[in-house]
Amino acid sequence: MNNSINIGLLGLGTVGSGVVHIIDQHQDKLKHQVGCSVTISKILVNDLHKERDVHLNGSRLTTDADDILNDPEVDVILEVMGGIEESRKYILQALENKKHVVTANKDLVAVYGSELLQAAAKNKCDLFYEASVAGGIPIIRSLVDGLASDKITKMMGILNGTTNYILTKMTKEGRDYNEVLKEAQDLGYAESDPTADVEGIDAARKTAILGTLGFSMPIELEDVNVAGISNVTTEDLDYSHELGLTMKLIGIAERTGNKVEVSVQPTLFPHSHPLASVNDEFNAVYVYGEAVGETMFYGPGAGKLPTATAVVSDLVEVMKNMRLGVNGNKVSEPQFEKQLKSDDEIFSKYFLRIHAKDQAGTFSELTSVFSENDVSLEKILQRPVEGQEVAEIIVTTHKVSKQNYDSVLKALAELDVVDHVKSSYRVEGGK
Amino acid sequence: MNNSINIGLLGLGTVGSGVVHIIDQHQDKLKHQVGCSVTISKILVNDLHKERDVHLNGSRLTTDADDILNDPEVDVILEVMGGIEESRKYILQALENKKHVVTANKDLVAVYGSELLQAAAKNKCDLFYEASVAGGIPIIRSLVDGLASDKITKMMGILNGTTNYILTKMTKEGRDYNEVLKEAQDLGYAESDPTADVEGIDAARKTAILGTLGFSMPIELEDVNVAGISNVTTEDLDYSHELGLTMKLIGIAERTGNKVEVSVQPTLFPHSHPLASVNDEFNAVYVYGEAVGETMFYGPGAGKLPTATAVVSDLVEVMKNMRLGVNGNKVSEPQFEKQLKSDDEIFSKYFLRIHAKDQAGTFSELTSVFSENDVSLEKILQRPVEGQEVAEIIVTTHKVSKQNYDSVLKALAELDVVDHVKSSYRVEGGK
Repeated sequence: MNNSINIGLLGLGTVGSGVVHIIDQHQDKLKHQVGCSVTISKILVNDLHKERDVHLNGSRLTTDADDILNDPEVDVILEVMGGIEESRKYILQALENKKHVVTANKDLVAVYGSELLQAAAKNKCDLFYEASVAGGIPIIRSLVDGLASDKITKMMGILNGTTNYILTKMTKEGRDYNEVLKEAQDLGYAESDPTADVEGIDAARKTAILGTLGFSMPIELEDVNVAGISNVTTEDLDYSHELGLTMKLIGIAERTGNKVEVSVQPTLFPHSHPLASVNDEFNAVYVYGEAVGETMFYGPGAGKLPTATAVVSDLVEVMKNMRLGVNGNKVSEPQFEKQLKSDDEIFSKYFLRIHAKDQAGTFSELTSVFSENDVSLEKILQRPVEGQEVAEIIVTTHKVSKQNYDSVLKALAELDVVDHVKSSYRVEGGK
Repeated sequence: MNNSINIGLLGLGTVGSGVVHIIDQHQDKLKHQVGCSVTISKILVNDLHKERDVHLNGSRLTTDADDILNDPEVDVILEVMGGIEESRKYILQALENKKHVVTANKDLVAVYGSELLQAAAKNKCDLFYEASVAGGIPIIRSLVDGLASDKITKMMGILNGTTNYILTKMTKEGRDYNEVLKEAQDLGYAESDPTADVEGIDAARKTAILGTLGFSMPIELEDVNVAGISNVTTEDLDYSHELGLTMKLIGIAERTGNKVEVSVQPTLFPHSHPLASVNDEFNAVYVYGEAVGETMFYGPGAGKLPTATAVVSDLVEVMKNMRLGVNGNKVSEPQFEKQLKSDDEIFSKYFLRIHAKDQAGTFSELTSVFSENDVSLEKILQRPVEGQEVAEIIVTTHKVSKQNYDSVLKALAELDVVDHVKSSYRVEGGK
């Protein structure tokens, strides 16, 4: 058994220099945990001569990936360079060469996760990716460790800091979506092309990763039913608030028997639900386990040191497994066939806002649509819209099937008395 | 290296039978994680012939502890029998015999934790106790794993389900302490002698354990400054609510430089703070790490399966360490000398409620007491008390030293214009 484990680091940007810093600072503690020392022997960079604000402590820089990936002395690869195609190629090559891999790359894991995990299993190597979902929260480790002695039935996550920041500002300050988005872009919290964030795609990638792990099924991005927040209005938030509800963009992965539902959508929670208090750029994952009941993990979703901390935690796990001789065990490779729920198997409550003609008989026409489709109502709020001949009608439903609810939406849109179906959101977290 | 690890289980009550059930159900997964199989070879019980609703799967029952503790085939002891003196004796004997130990016993760990950890270190054995703090939350593992690559500066925990249930009911339903306590006793949520819970002693034990681990200092129960909830009134909760604050019984462990403060007291949080939404019997621990920032772990604090799950997670860790040859490493043994903060080094905001004479000059007398002691005010609320010649005055302070604040309390009590200092609470979680 080696007395030192050698690391190859791919990338020396923000997260990479965080990793170098943490390993340098915590050398003694790492040795205590693992029983041997850790050396970053080589680091892949684009430019050998760039000025860097990081203490390299003897690590050799190289611009040639092969110099690291084919080095028989390198035991573990940490991929913190980002991007998809090149990272994929390097990681596959590393696994072929029997090197364990830790990656912080959510885009890569969401798209090529199954391929990479298969390659890892084939080569009996570890492939860990704690930093790819909610960087500062040890959620993947909690799911995997928990799986040894529990069965997870549902996960609900606030998985994207940008959209949570936007919804928090809209809710607390009553400002509209475009204004808050622009401010977030000016502050650098949102990308100049914010599509992946605001349309829920980033959250969908992470939800697919959580679902794959939590249910041990190969769930892919295209299995996730996605809606973003770009159509959310301050009126929606005001009316929700009046009904005691707070909006969050939520990734949901839910299992009933052997069938699962995976989706991302703006979702309303009672103010008193723990997810309703997760504000600003924070992330959180709410997990239901058969044995443990309800637990929640809350923390920063991104950032240099939170992400680097997650990478180093994975590295510690890899090194422990190396010394145990249990690398590449089956826990993280999906064990069950994927079975997605159909719409008549997905149950939820809903919030619905309609503008309808403010005249006798309207309400009875509406309620018959609901009852014909077996959708029962929990709360109803009606009031005139100022200066118009329409009434604002808001209802929340009891738990109903998505199929029945979608039939209601379709039937309502065709009613003469309905002016406009303004908005519709899923409601979770109640009794 | 053995192909099977043998377990001795002390106790077969609620948690014990949960442990047997979980190990039986998850045998394959455990083998995957650890690389060998797990057998519960012997179980200590009081009565061999009692009818039990648990599948023993070949485990042998015994009423003689020595039969387990002196058996060279037994590798790990799981203590789930409760009590203090007998458990302590058995665990010390197990460690002397080089057996690793997992315990769910918070009373024992709080009182004899240092002695047991020293014995474990001396014998190079593991001693794990995840289930002793917030049973269903993997908080101890998160602190220990996090310590490898982060530095914890503050922890705030809702650590007692009974008091959180009582405060939640008082807050949401406006009912008074005695009424809710009685209801909790009738429902079996509170003991017939509720002292350890309502006076904060149970929370103090867990806070001492968290502080010891998080700061790696030997913090004992007597180091914890404790106040319970038995004097909390519905008026306090109503006025707090008006100021946007929610009350929780909180264990705080905070470090500045090398000095720490450890306390338990009813504490007010802004409604939007994640701890403010932890309701009913749930527990949560809010952790500040230098690298990771703010994280929170939320879940059930007790219960058969949550607690048994925590015990089995510890067992997995012990078995991995056995196969690594790194049992008894230093992580959990305190590394630093204990240094407690004095009152002029403890800083916090406060909420203060006074009844004062409703006459000219009162307010100026009060404010001079605050300013003489360097205590600046954030919010002030004053109103007459119906049918009395006194005014209700509520203030919240900015962050001030405990020493200065206590001087204010003392000076106010001596003022003629002050009728009564009604209540005073710590305020946390703001900017």
